[in-house]
Amino acid sequence: MTTPQEQKSYRIVELETHDIRFPTSRELDGSDAMNPDPDYSAAYVVLKTDDGYAGHGFAFTIGRGNDVQTAAISALESYVIGRDVEDLGALYKEMVYDSQLRWLGPEKGVMHMAISAVVNALWDLKAKRAGKPLWLLLSELTPEQIVDLIDFRYLSDVLTPEQALEILKKAEKGKGERVEHIKREGYPAYTTSPGWLGYDDDKLRRLCKEALDAGFGQIKLKVGADLDDDIRRFRVAREVCGADFPIAIDANQRWDVPAAIDWVNALKPFNPHWVEEPTSPDDVLGHAAIAEGIKPIPVATGEHVQNRIVFKQLLQAGAISYVQLDSARVGGVNENIAILLLAARFGIPVCPHAGGVGLCELVQHLSMFDYAAVSGTMENRVIEYVDHLHEHFVDPVVIVDGRYAAPSSPGFSAAMHPESIAAHTFPDGEIWRDA
Amino acid sequence: MTTPQEQKSYRIVELETHDIRFPTSRELDGSDAMNPDPDYSAAYVVLKTDDGYAGHGFAFTIGRGNDVQTAAISALESYVIGRDVEDLGALYKEMVYDSQLRWLGPEKGVMHMAISAVVNALWDLKAKRAGKPLWLLLSELTPEQIVDLIDFRYLSDVLTPEQALEILKKAEKGKGERVEHIKREGYPAYTTSPGWLGYDDDKLRRLCKEALDAGFGQIKLKVGADLDDDIRRFRVAREVCGADFPIAIDANQRWDVPAAIDWVNALKPFNPHWVEEPTSPDDVLGHAAIAEGIKPIPVATGEHVQNRIVFKQLLQAGAISYVQLDSARVGGVNENIAILLLAARFGIPVCPHAGGVGLCELVQHLSMFDYAAVSGTMENRVIEYVDHLHEHFVDPVVIVDGRYAAPSSPGFSAAMHPESIAAHTFPDGEIWRDA
Repeated sequence: MTTPQEQKSYRIVELETHDIRFPTSRELDGSDAMNPDPDYSAAYVVLKTDDGYAGHGFAFTIGRGNDVQTAAISALESYVIGRDVEDLGALYKEMVYDSQLRWLGPEKGVMHMAISAVVNALWDLKAKRAGKPLWLLLSELTPEQIVDLIDFRYLSDVLTPEQALEILKKAEKGKGERVEHIKREGYPAYTTSPGWLGYDDDKLRRLCKEALDAGFGQIKLKVGADLDDDIRRFRVAREVCGADFPIAIDANQRWDVPAAIDWVNALKPFNPHWVEEPTSPDDVLGHAAIAEGIKPIPVATGEHVQNRIVFKQLLQAGAISYVQLDSARVGGVNENIAILLLAARFGIPVCPHAGGVGLCELVQHLSMFDYAAVSGTMENRVIEYVDHLHEHFVDPVVIVDGRYAAPSSPGFSAAMHPESIAAHTFPDGEIWRDA
Repeated sequence: MTTPQEQKSYRIVELETHDIRFPTSRELDGSDAMNPDPDYSAAYVVLKTDDGYAGHGFAFTIGRGNDVQTAAISALESYVIGRDVEDLGALYKEMVYDSQLRWLGPEKGVMHMAISAVVNALWDLKAKRAGKPLWLLLSELTPEQIVDLIDFRYLSDVLTPEQALEILKKAEKGKGERVEHIKREGYPAYTTSPGWLGYDDDKLRRLCKEALDAGFGQIKLKVGADLDDDIRRFRVAREVCGADFPIAIDANQRWDVPAAIDWVNALKPFNPHWVEEPTSPDDVLGHAAIAEGIKPIPVATGEHVQNRIVFKQLLQAGAISYVQLDSARVGGVNENIAILLLAARFGIPVCPHAGGVGLCELVQHLSMFDYAAVSGTMENRVIEYVDHLHEHFVDPVVIVDGRYAAPSSPGFSAAMHPESIAAHTFPDGEIWRDA
């Protein structure tokens, strides 16, 4: 993996943060049963080196508190200043095991999302220095190098380093062909754009039609605010998409366990492809009870699952049929590789959460790596796509015929345009100053 | 509950925060297998009213990141400015369901501990205005008033408002006598002071002897760094305390599931009273597997359990025999009342976590309320006691013959001396300026 740039000695010399917020609540984009008025935001970090490189990363939030999230990123400054990106396994673990900061979680919430932002920025930097898109850089690591990136603590009852190595070695066969396949064909996507709660039926109908025309193989509807509304909207979507088209539903944690079972069973005639976040992301046993109570409708969750330990239990309990990892909530690339391996160990497909600010840009790299080097399959797998805010990114996702095209620029696709950062900086950027 | 002061119109006009840190790492007080060098800290909040009252609260941290925690408390300012403390059920839920801030958890980590600090400060204010210690104020509420304080979301599969009401109504009988009993006898304590990892055997022996002489009915040893050391230290403690004296052990999340089972079974000959935090606080199924693998040794956990939803599952899974709630990690008094009710519903004793900065001062009120108005029993129940830092509190805990004496001053015992706050403010207080 070592390139000429990496052999030259260099150091990270600056950690710069930005509190970036988009006034999305003005348009009801992104509204759901639990989040009626989000202002999509990024607690954004730039790591600069003494030889002119910069790594970008961020935590996604939905408005208030983005300043707290930014402060948490700054609290990690001492871990990266003076460092390089040669050993991101060790550096990741150092941050997770800072015993004083760990008390603020452990491994959850604001402090863990801060680690995610910094870890992802380090990977962006590493991939840029290597001159490769992150998915390809990861895919070219050896099984042993990948295992070294992972923190197996609290996993060894279901996944040991040896078992991880076995999964990765098995996937070595055909990896080259799969890399070429990704470059040619990309990775399948589904779209949530039609399904936000704030939209009227005409807009829903129009957006469903557009999703079909754009070649997406699945859509998703937000549900959970009002059952009659959900039935009406699901009927509209079925009318446009047809009886067999995969339509998932997403409750965004709205229900208690008994309510989830009743509500989803009421929607069963519309054949939901999965039900997402039916209850609290912390409720492993609740998800298992819901899965039992609504079968055969599959349960999916993950965007708010705090770390690998909760994913481990969701899999152990047979509570979920889809792992919806998020690129920027758990401890960044490193912890997400552990989650990909857990999913592979249990034979459960990963269909990542995306949307927000830049989550599509990031997570495509993880799914492509999963196909190339971990699970070795795209079967029953799709990456969420939402057509928000991509114009602010230097290397935005490219969707072709309902699929993510493989990123080819070096890095993790995390960098935003300087003008976008300046305009949306809270509270002094022009977007907010004028509001 | 309305007092003359409360009838007069007033408003909270100021939320003031302080980043307070004690340099405890210099002495190894508080060191354990996961936290070798804590600087016990408080992200401290004062709510001031326009008629001269002040409510105090705090989140406990162990050093770095206390600034992030303080910033999170400030993010809640808009919820309390201009408000009173008439309806703390509603105000608590407003903060928990701020949809934008909720994204930073939900209900976990930095943002949830910030809610805890503010909610507890509101209760301190309410109790001061009522002229009563908090435990007594809570004990005098009606079952209906208590139920109104609770957020039952995500609990209704095991605890409905009706079931909570039933528990509370049953405890109405004899409540007056139990209140008098608390005033006379206080509440039993155990001490962790002998057991920190940084102490040598002579100090361990001396502190065990002192614990017995002080009348404590239980002690606790930190374990998990080195098995041979643990065996030697447990043997020393048994020599001093005798074969039948309750000695609990605490691993502070050190182990994976298989390691926990092996390690605790190796200590079985010393008859641990309970094993505390054997693994990740997030691992409900792991705790259940450990409980099965080490029986009949009971498992205890709670100081890092993020919210009522995880406690619910630990109880559902039969994973723990003791609920060790913490006064300042979950959403303050309100969520802790829900946790007391969950424990009562499952018939599991609550033995709270304490120590740190001011956690003893706070949590005694919750256990006394539990005895008076919820579980109605002190059987097999003890509150942790650590003899650190009480001198900084205006109304410090009083231990008499190994028991917490009932607080009689109005409030939640949360206020620190202004001189202590000034001296320990980070980084400009004299303690840190001179370091």
